[in-house]
Amino acid sequence: MEYGTIAAISTPMGEGAIAIVRLSGEEAIEIADRIFRSAGGSKLAEVPSHTIHYGRIIDPKSKEIAEEVMVSVMKGPRTFTRENVVEINCHGGIVSVNRVLQLALNAGAELAEPGEFTKRAFLNGRIDLSQAEAVMDLIRAKTDRAMGVALGQMEGRLSKLIRGLRQDIIETVAHVEVNIDYPEYDDVEEMTHRLLVEKATHIKAELQKLLQTSEQGKILREGLSTVIIGRPNVGKSSLLNSLVQENKAIVTDIPGTTRDVIEEYVNVRGVPLRLVDTAGIRETEDIVERIGVERSRQVLKEADLILLVLNSADELTKEDEQLFVAVEGMDVIVISNKTDLPQKVDMDRVREIAGNHQIVTTSLLEEEGIDDLEQAIAGMFFQGQLEAADMTYVSNNRHIALLHQALQAIDDVLSGIDMGTPIDIIQIDLTRTWELLGEIIGDTVQESLIDQLFSQFCLGK
Amino acid sequence: MEYGTIAAISTPMGEGAIAIVRLSGEEAIEIADRIFRSAGGSKLAEVPSHTIHYGRIIDPKSKEIAEEVMVSVMKGPRTFTRENVVEINCHGGIVSVNRVLQLALNAGAELAEPGEFTKRAFLNGRIDLSQAEAVMDLIRAKTDRAMGVALGQMEGRLSKLIRGLRQDIIETVAHVEVNIDYPEYDDVEEMTHRLLVEKATHIKAELQKLLQTSEQGKILREGLSTVIIGRPNVGKSSLLNSLVQENKAIVTDIPGTTRDVIEEYVNVRGVPLRLVDTAGIRETEDIVERIGVERSRQVLKEADLILLVLNSADELTKEDEQLFVAVEGMDVIVISNKTDLPQKVDMDRVREIAGNHQIVTTSLLEEEGIDDLEQAIAGMFFQGQLEAADMTYVSNNRHIALLHQALQAIDDVLSGIDMGTPIDIIQIDLTRTWELLGEIIGDTVQESLIDQLFSQFCLGK
Repeated sequence: MEYGTIAAISTPMGEGAIAIVRLSGEEAIEIADRIFRSAGGSKLAEVPSHTIHYGRIIDPKSKEIAEEVMVSVMKGPRTFTRENVVEINCHGGIVSVNRVLQLALNAGAELAEPGEFTKRAFLNGRIDLSQAEAVMDLIRAKTDRAMGVALGQMEGRLSKLIRGLRQDIIETVAHVEVNIDYPEYDDVEEMTHRLLVEKATHIKAELQKLLQTSEQGKILREGLSTVIIGRPNVGKSSLLNSLVQENKAIVTDIPGTTRDVIEEYVNVRGVPLRLVDTAGIRETEDIVERIGVERSRQVLKEADLILLVLNSADELTKEDEQLFVAVEGMDVIVISNKTDLPQKVDMDRVREIAGNHQIVTTSLLEEEGIDDLEQAIAGMFFQGQLEAADMTYVSNNRHIALLHQALQAIDDVLSGIDMGTPIDIIQIDLTRTWELLGEIIGDTVQESLIDQLFSQFCLGK
Repeated sequence: MEYGTIAAISTPMGEGAIAIVRLSGEEAIEIADRIFRSAGGSKLAEVPSHTIHYGRIIDPKSKEIAEEVMVSVMKGPRTFTRENVVEINCHGGIVSVNRVLQLALNAGAELAEPGEFTKRAFLNGRIDLSQAEAVMDLIRAKTDRAMGVALGQMEGRLSKLIRGLRQDIIETVAHVEVNIDYPEYDDVEEMTHRLLVEKATHIKAELQKLLQTSEQGKILREGLSTVIIGRPNVGKSSLLNSLVQENKAIVTDIPGTTRDVIEEYVNVRGVPLRLVDTAGIRETEDIVERIGVERSRQVLKEADLILLVLNSADELTKEDEQLFVAVEGMDVIVISNKTDLPQKVDMDRVREIAGNHQIVTTSLLEEEGIDDLEQAIAGMFFQGQLEAADMTYVSNNRHIALLHQALQAIDDVLSGIDMGTPIDIIQIDLTRTWELLGEIIGDTVQESLIDQLFSQFCLGK
């Protein structure tokens, strides 16, 4: 299929060393030639693919020089979009890169919509829908592990699994039809039922296995929303600071890079914690009072993880006990802090009201017990499974919803067999399972949905 | 000279479609080979220069895939730094680009300091110091014209002029020395004096011409700091809004690009206005009261341009007159607004107190007179000279200071001749002029200054 030639700025906006204007489409090279003068005098239309050329961007009307650039020429189909791609590598100024883009648009390119490059990679069959979605997850990944999940999905790990299941289903449907149309034996109905039960049970188990990864996948993708609560002066700020200090620099420790950008995320052994209302916690000493307020309860209710801090150098107060009531039924780690001071807290009582919640003792002042806490957080959500770096996680809400629907459809198949429903009715549910799984990789998906999905991408991707 | 191999992220931080890790140095290609696996199996060390290669970045220890990338290989000296350069073009995620950088550092690269790539281009003789400084100006340019000035400087326009002057000086010095050492005529002293006067006068005129461009150059580079003042309800907000609406999208009008980034700059016919304390102006109705306050006077004093708004549908008040007193001696444009309403203001009186200031009548409500205002602003600072797009502007404070010192030195030469100072003393001043001009292009500049200059660059440039 042929689409117009699109152009966009593909690097983040801001002052940087390099900015890129990317073009993709049949006429990408021709359009670039209209505004580019190579230092060596050659035309981009005549250069080999995957080569880089130094020169100047010229305004064809005024003949003025607009930028000094390096231009990369990549001829389809060996490109991200499978189309001809030209990347114009400018000095990273906002004005200059905008000017280069404007000249490219004047020369015949259309302004790309957000996600349109990736959408073309999908529409031109280079990647499927789940791979395209992974591209965006990769860009937004908060930790190494989240990146690993996205990368695995981008390389087609989830797609392969889904394709395998769909192949199973389609073969089963075919097999059943052959059995019915050309019965070789008298017990064809029984045999067909047996085959269906076996296949549907297998598919159900696979879907369940995938869905089991979804909780962890979502945490890796979106982070655990975490709230620190406790009475005044129990050490909430110290806890926040030590989590941030120990884990702030996500992935690497290179000065001047990530620090400001994703400051609300803390990477605890691969688990991204999103510290909710951190500013509030920093200053607030009144969260205990606010517990009665509906809004505070709401914040707690939406949290994935509560870190409840006690002062073990003090006796348990009524306020402490109220906090335990407020977080009932939630994922809580109890932190008994200040072990450096003489202990006054009744630990038996703490264990009693903590119930099933884990208790970690710390002296945040002396930096003791922080390892145990991090271990508790990681263990609580991953039980050590994170080590399997090559595991396929489902992390995308759209995929999770489709897998749930597919599971429902395959359940309908199984209960249909149980109830003796005619085979052709059962086939409908089986085919529906196949279709739902197809939506994950984009084989059976509506055009409007595709537009909507890609519109969530960033500009220039 | 040989330096180590450096690496840095060369695109702005943030979520974007593409991020680049750039390496430069003798071992750039070798280091990239340690972490890159080409899809085609080839080693980067073996590929031709200026070619692009698809593949994966691998963690050499864990063998895990870290990213899917395009790698550009450019062999020195045909590169920005004149060294071997490798650009690793990643999906634009913060985590993934940091990881790639980290792997490059682990594989033997050093983290580049801000400006270090450009510094190498300078140290390796590809560009001189004023060209290097222009690179940063280009990145920070706020308007097309500012970009044009930077681009001209980057292409060596200022350097050429300075080199020409220095050549003149050195030839004069040589000539004078020859005259003294090998006097051909009796009147050698008189002839030498005449030659010196002629040359020094010429150089002085050239320096003055350059310095004349500096005010405009600085405005183009840094913007005119502009304050809007006036009584409550005269139309200050409307003025601000119409300036912003008409001119906000600097250079181009592409959605989702510049809008948020440089919102405090407004481009009025190529003149960048930096609207000072805009937020204050938006909400403030008490600037008149605050006029008495020292701090407000300070803001006014530092402004390059005052837009003083009057309500022509009202009589002049004492407050209005106080404003005129407050801005005495400054660059002011008086805006007599609300011509759509019945006029009550005494324009003769306005003209009287406005003195030499220009007066523009507007109806901001009906969008009348805005053209006149913009014309007045542009004319006030550029008198139409801006049309000369190929003019060499001096815009950098360091250059301006050096030109002033050089002018002083050449003045010393001229007054020395006047006073009959011995030739060898005059030669010292002449040589000093030559040295000062050399500092502009970096020929005679201290290493510590070079370090300091480049440290103001952005990371990865």
